[in-house]
Formats: sequence, C-alpha cells, structure tokens
Amino acid sequence: MNFPSKLLEDAVHEVSKLPGIGKKTALRLVLHLLKSESKDSESLVHALLNARNNIQYCIKCHNISDTEVCDICSSNRRDKKVVCVVEDIRDVLAIENTNQYFGTYHVLGGVISPMERIGPDQLNIQSLLERVLTDSEIKEVILGLSPTMEGDTTAFFITKKLKPYTVKISTIARGIPFGGELEYMDEITLGRSIATRTLFETKED
Amino acid sequence: MNFPSKLLEDAVHEVSKLPGIGKKTALRLVLHLLKSESKDSESLVHALLNARNNIQYCIKCHNISDTEVCDICSSNRRDKKVVCVVEDIRDVLAIENTNQYFGTYHVLGGVISPMERIGPDQLNIQSLLERVLTDSEIKEVILGLSPTMEGDTTAFFITKKLKPYTVKISTIARGIPFGGELEYMDEITLGRSIATRTLFETKED
Repeated sequence: MNFPSKLLEDAVHEVSKLPGIGKKTALRLVLHLLKSESKDSESLVHALLNARNNIQYCIKCHNISDTEVCDICSSNRRDKKVVCVVEDIRDVLAIENTNQYFGTYHVLGGVISPMERIGPDQLNIQSLLERVLTDSEIKEVILGLSPTMEGDTTAFFITKKLKPYTVKISTIARGIPFGGELEYMDEITLGRSIATRTLFETKED
Repeated sequence: MNFPSKLLEDAVHEVSKLPGIGKKTALRLVLHLLKSESKDSESLVHALLNARNNIQYCIKCHNISDTEVCDICSSNRRDKKVVCVVEDIRDVLAIENTNQYFGTYHVLGGVISPMERIGPDQLNIQSLLERVLTDSEIKEVILGLSPTMEGDTTAFFITKKLKPYTVKISTIARGIPFGGELEYMDEITLGRSIATRTLFETKED
C-alpha cells in the first residue's frame, strides 16, 4: 500500500503490530482517530500510557492489580484453601465471570511451550511452589489450564513438582460443553467423555 | 466484566471505543501492550499522537498529506484533466493500488446520509465546485462513489450541481465483478449488467 503521508504510514505500521490487527484494520482505526475529536485520542493515549506505567502485578498470585496485593488475595471472603492455577489474566476474568469460584488464583503468565521457547523458568511456577510450601492454609491446587498440548505439559510438570507436598491436586472437568452437539464433537473429546463418564446419583444412595 | 484493576478497565474502555473493537478484543490488545516492551507501546503512542497532531489535508483535494498540497496534486506526472470524486481517503488508496488511474482526486469526506445527519454542507462539495470553476484544466469529473443509496444520492447531487459547468461527468462502471459468479449475483446487479451491456468491438470496425 502506498500511503499519501509518512505520518499516516508510521501510525498504521505501529497499530498493525498489535495481535489480530492487519494493515486494513489498522488504517481504519487510525483514520477513525484522525476524524474523531482531539480529546478522544488524547484520552485513549493517556489511558494506555497510564496502564502501561502504573499497573502492578499482585505479589502473591501475579494477577493484574492496582495495589501490591490484589483484591482477590486480600479479600477475607475468598476461600484461601483452594488455588486455581491459570495461564493468563484473561482466564481469571473468565472464571470470575462464572460467579461460581470463590477461591484464589495463581497466574502462570503462559504455558510451557518449547516451540515458543517458553520453559518453566519463564513462568510463575517457582512462586507457586513457594506459596504452597509457606502457606499452610492451602489444601488444594486446581489446574485450570486449557486442554492443549502445552496446557497438558504444564499441568504434568506442576503435578510432578507438587507431589512432595501434602496438597490435593485437581484439574477442571473435561467433556462435552453445554450446548455442544454430540455429532459435531471431535473424537478425542467424545471418546474421553464416555471413558470418564459421571454416574448419576440414584435415589437409593 | 469485573476488572481486577481500574487502570486496566480504563484502558480497555478507551480501546473498545474504536470501531469494530469489542471488549474482549480491547482486553487482548491492552494485555498485549502490557506484556510487550515499554518502547513498543511508547512508539505506538508516539506514532498515534504524531499523526493526530501533524497530519494535514491537501488544500486542493482534501487527501491526507504531510504537506499543504499532496503528492498527487503537486505531481506533474498526473493527468490534471480528470478528477475522481471519492468518499474517503481509503478509496484513494484502493484506486492508487490498481495502478490504472493517473488523474487527480477529490475526497468528499463522506456521503450524503440524512440518517446520520450528513448533508452536502458537511462534505467537501463546495470546494469541488470551486475547483472545477477556477481550474480550466479540468475536463472530466469521475464519480467514484459506492453504488449504495447514500453514494447514489451524493452522485445525483453533485451531477446536478456540476450541470452548469462544461466538464464531462462520468461514473465508474457497475456490473459483475471479475471472479464473481453469475448465479450468486443479486438481481439488481445482474439485471443492470444486462441492460448496460458492452458491445464487443468486431474485426470489421
């Protein structure tokens, strides 16, 4: 694309570096900003810089936070006996949105992926082990990782490391999602969902 | 969505104001910026502010430009006899990419749309009329507007306004796009493409 202006080209180039944003979308966004009022683009830029410079990560669970210890870790309404290990901050938000989990989290900041040169040392695994070791309140670690190759590798690694400790280790349930149609489900999910079927509780129980 | 941080929420809120960017995409973009190196987000912000504050619009054709008169208007390689009227800067880029047009442009900055309260006065139509009136070099005005209700209204309005002048007025060809399949084409396009069919030049001519 030949841009009529170097300034436009630079802006489009920078915006198109963002994940999932191509040249055409970047151009649309930049032209939108150029058309919109000056204060709109200023508040965008201000919010981005402010977030970039001032956001902290909770020293306990590595979740994003405005304070040294995040709201979840410092709340006394949360169940400190369970820690849910997740890949990313977005997973915390997703689980929080369910309103069905009341324990704490531990954000790894990624999963083990030799392809992308991410090993255990790049993730917050050591701090998880220390947390489990020092905090005697923790009774269970839930592995809330995606059922992918990388997620499974990471879960396996953490399970091995946690073996010496007395905590229970569990993983989120895998199976057919609600609303999913059996005939369109992949063979692995369907096969395992039969193998790991759940017994109905009968009235006699 | 409950955000763990006010700073994060503000940033996501600002980014999700951009067109076509929802909350989830905004969150992904902001988290990407937080993870990336500080200089990356700084150069993004710098490029955006720089574009916002320093980009000019060509005083002749209203195209984006780094100079008072844009490269196309000031180039002596371009054919000053034809002016292609387009809605948007993106249309200029699209036509330039074809490498098949060598005239100049006139960017309206939109199309007449009563629904969005955009009338002729909000567009660069008056300056087009003045340009045609004062620049005797201009012999033809090509209406390069989208074949939508708004585009047609705008074309009709401009045609009426240009009638008193001696310039030729034309519109870009409408019909079946190359690679388009007849059976999937809508009735209006197909019907008109038969009505306005082009005669093959025979060898006898």
